[in-house]
Amino acid sequence: MPKGLVVETELRVRFAETDAQGVVYYAHYFVWFEVARVNFLRTLGFNYSEAEKAGIGFVIAEAYCRYLAPAHFDELIKIKTWVEDIGRSSFTLGYEVINGETDQTLALGKTTQVFLDMKGTRKPIPIPAPVREALEKARDSGGETGGNVEGRAVGKASPH
Amino acid sequence: MPKGLVVETELRVRFAETDAQGVVYYAHYFVWFEVARVNFLRTLGFNYSEAEKAGIGFVIAEAYCRYLAPAHFDELIKIKTWVEDIGRSSFTLGYEVINGETDQTLALGKTTQVFLDMKGTRKPIPIPAPVREALEKARDSGGETGGNVEGRAVGKASPH
Amino acid sequence: MPKGLVVETELRVRFAETDAQGVVYYAHYFVWFEVARVNFLRTLGFNYSEAEKAGIGFVIAEAYCRYLAPAHFDELIKIKTWVEDIGRSSFTLGYEVINGETDQTLALGKTTQVFLDMKGTRKPIPIPAPVREALEKARDSGGETGGNVEGRAVGKASPH
Amino acid sequence: MPKGLVVETELRVRFAETDAQGVVYYAHYFVWFEVARVNFLRTLGFNYSEAEKAGIGFVIAEAYCRYLAPAHFDELIKIKTWVEDIGRSSFTLGYEVINGETDQTLALGKTTQVFLDMKGTRKPIPIPAPVREALEKARDSGGETGGNVEGRAVGKASPH
Repeated sequence: MPKGLVVETELRVRFAETDAQGVVYYAHYFVWFEVARVNFLRTLGFNYSEAEKAGIGFVIAEAYCRYLAPAHFDELIKIKTWVEDIGRSSFTLGYEVINGETDQTLALGKTTQVFLDMKGTRKPIPIPAPVREALEKARDSGGETGGNVEGRAVGKASPH
Repeated sequence: MPKGLVVETELRVRFAETDAQGVVYYAHYFVWFEVARVNFLRTLGFNYSEAEKAGIGFVIAEAYCRYLAPAHFDELIKIKTWVEDIGRSSFTLGYEVINGETDQTLALGKTTQVFLDMKGTRKPIPIPAPVREALEKARDSGGETGGNVEGRAVGKASPH
Repeated sequence: MPKGLVVETELRVRFAETDAQGVVYYAHYFVWFEVARVNFLRTLGFNYSEAEKAGIGFVIAEAYCRYLAPAHFDELIKIKTWVEDIGRSSFTLGYEVINGETDQTLALGKTTQVFLDMKGTRKPIPIPAPVREALEKARDSGGETGGNVEGRAVGKASPH
Repeated sequence: MPKGLVVETELRVRFAETDAQGVVYYAHYFVWFEVARVNFLRTLGFNYSEAEKAGIGFVIAEAYCRYLAPAHFDELIKIKTWVEDIGRSSFTLGYEVINGETDQTLALGKTTQVFLDMKGTRKPIPIPAPVREALEKARDSGGETGGNVEGRAVGKASPH
């Protein structure tokens, strides 16, 4: 369940994301997690695309989703994101996918990211200090909420 | 080139949309056209998901894209959409994909949609009168501009 | 780890499945699980598309993947699939994603499917008897192996 | 229409490729064109992934598809591919998407690829001589047919 700093990301279901059951195909929730993750980290001051240019990057080590209710074309979706756990090289984010109009929880998920030496060995490296600091601060936060529409800030977060 | 009513749709490039060349994979532009199309039609008062429930729907008959410059992860993208042509059962929309920060044109595209009897024969039917009227009005417009962020209105268009 | 009847599904990495890190994007593994799942169930005599027409269907309740090593464009991939668990309304399949040339394990995953009354309430229903029987037989099997290329049988399994 | 050397690629429709209209989403045909293109070029002796490592690569300059009839989950699809045109830096392939059981034509398409200096300027460069030679031979061929299942050769083509 959401804890610490919770960042909200909004998006609208694309027709491309639906399947022949008339609902969003299960793999697309992991794409939404990515959109929410990038947004969460941007709120923390971590710009993923710039970091990668500097040879700092992470890969996904584990991904999990529990599906509670379906999402449909054109629905407004909110994704709450928070720090679930911090390790030496890895950190885990939690996600709650919500129908933006009814507030119904549609899915709960987690992803674990591990920092790698992207330029050299691709072996795990300790979480870079400023990232660790920001993650710890978010984890220990008193429960603020930031928010973001995909592509444009509507709350505290800045997409740029 | 854009003409008549031009509606702008904004989105941000997802990591999921990139490929091993480091740029957006070519098929995803057609997904972006869909996001822009749904938004354009919503601006015209045509709610696709409600229309489909009423048995009115269209399918894509033709799709075309010319790629001029690549798009990259996390870039802000604007898609201009306008009416290119109106037939008896079909209509063609034009799209211009633009880098939202540099204003560079990245791609130009077209899709032709044809209305079908979705409940029965799946044969082409004339464009429903209110849709035709709205399309003609957009085509003959003096060049207004509406705008929309994916998931939230920022201009004239309302996503709800 | 694989147990009981293990069905192998082969596919080749599409360029569309790669991302700007030069490897297969993490969400696509769940699409591969679907390809493997459909193939596994077909091997058991369960044709998903015919079942859905009869109002019998399942949805994904949980999905999990652990990523061990990356996959790249054009690599040959093998996915081993087996029955992990059988409940009243749900069953869990296990997956091992393997590099088809080096035999290296790239990922391990699980999905839990729950049968729903697709025509009526969309509430969970008991696993249909013939499906349950086939799943139990697969789970209790002495470790045979069936195999299938995406789109054409190469082993025991028949794609038709 | 198919001419010269025609290479056939087979695949089976994934559930992930369907949409809420119950048919394959229009953008996925361009992914299928990619699968067919890679296979066509491999048949000609051009290994795309090896070429990219050598700094030789192409990007898509134009893509077009005309949709004639829908494809559905689990259907067997055949894609015929041939050389449509050869320029200085670019070449155009044609595609015919066919229902593998009924032989009905589902879609016709084209993509134009342009060779770029991938390591340096990213400007167009002449088609590398061995590729041009192979493309010309295919174009001028008397109408042989090669074939390939996605992931495994079934005809003349070798996926390795």
